[in-house]
Amino acid sequence: MTRISPSVDRLVDALQFLPGVGPKSATRMALLMLQGERAGAERLAKCIQEAVELVHACSVCRNLSEAEVCEICSSPKRDPKLLCIVESVSDVIAIESSGQFSGRYFVLHGRLSPIDGVGPSDLGLDRLPPLVAERGVKEVVLATNPTIEGEATAQFISESLEGQATAVTRIAHGVPIGGELEYVDGGTIAHAIRGRVRVGS
Amino acid sequence: MTRISPSVDRLVDALQFLPGVGPKSATRMALLMLQGERAGAERLAKCIQEAVELVHACSVCRNLSEAEVCEICSSPKRDPKLLCIVESVSDVIAIESSGQFSGRYFVLHGRLSPIDGVGPSDLGLDRLPPLVAERGVKEVVLATNPTIEGEATAQFISESLEGQATAVTRIAHGVPIGGELEYVDGGTIAHAIRGRVRVGS
Repeated sequence: MTRISPSVDRLVDALQFLPGVGPKSATRMALLMLQGERAGAERLAKCIQEAVELVHACSVCRNLSEAEVCEICSSPKRDPKLLCIVESVSDVIAIESSGQFSGRYFVLHGRLSPIDGVGPSDLGLDRLPPLVAERGVKEVVLATNPTIEGEATAQFISESLEGQATAVTRIAHGVPIGGELEYVDGGTIAHAIRGRVRVGS
Repeated sequence: MTRISPSVDRLVDALQFLPGVGPKSATRMALLMLQGERAGAERLAKCIQEAVELVHACSVCRNLSEAEVCEICSSPKRDPKLLCIVESVSDVIAIESSGQFSGRYFVLHGRLSPIDGVGPSDLGLDRLPPLVAERGVKEVVLATNPTIEGEATAQFISESLEGQATAVTRIAHGVPIGGELEYVDGGTIAHAIRGRVRVGS
């Protein structure tokens, strides 16, 4: 790219850590910020600084929160005996938007991956068995992703909770609702067939 | 979208003035900033503020610049007698990256559009005839886009320079190099045929 000025070049560079933003779209964004949208650009800079300063991990569930304990953990409406374990904050958002879960969460911020040096304590998994015991959790719902690492993480958690008086469940995997068999990949169909459930009486 | 915390919601909102960023990708960007990439986020905020503060329109050609007069206008290597008129800073970048133009620019930051209330003075066009006269410009290259408004703007500029001792030219439009006729739209082909040039002797 042709350079315009050092500070624009630095801005174009800085924008590229964002997901899906390459040199071309970073340049477009930077030019927009410096031409029609200076107020929007200043507001964005302020919002970034504010959020980075205010938002931290909830001390209980590791979800993002401005308070020490997040809104979900401190809400009396959420069942403390039901605990859903997810890989990331976006998974919390996805499950919340389904409206089907009334318990609390525990956010791993990753998955077990020995190759990348990610072990149980990096995911806060050492805090999980005491949390389940103290709170008397009745059901732990494993909602890690259906990838090799996600499954291994689910398996590890399930084993680490053995001997505790809690049920451990895994969310269902299969053909997505509204999906047509024709367009679903073979692995998903194989899983859906192995995991078939009895209907009728 | 499910809300996480007020400052994250404000950040997700603020990100959406960027081109091509909707609620979903804004949320992804915000979560990335607050999880793995806090340093990148802080750097981005700093770069935005710095660029907005330092970068302004060049007082001669209206291109973006940190100095009062931009690098191109102040470079002794650029021919002051050759002036290219473009709609936007991205057009300057596009032409510079072609390496084919050694003159200076004049950036309109838009195009004539009576419906949107954009008149000649909004584009700095009142400054153009005196600039051409003072500098003794030999050739004005009109590089506005080949849209109805871009053509009208080119026509207006051409008329406003009548009576001055300068040649007014328009960049060539036609079938793009490397493009196959089969995939080029009818309007472009019609233009290419009307604008055919003699080859050979």
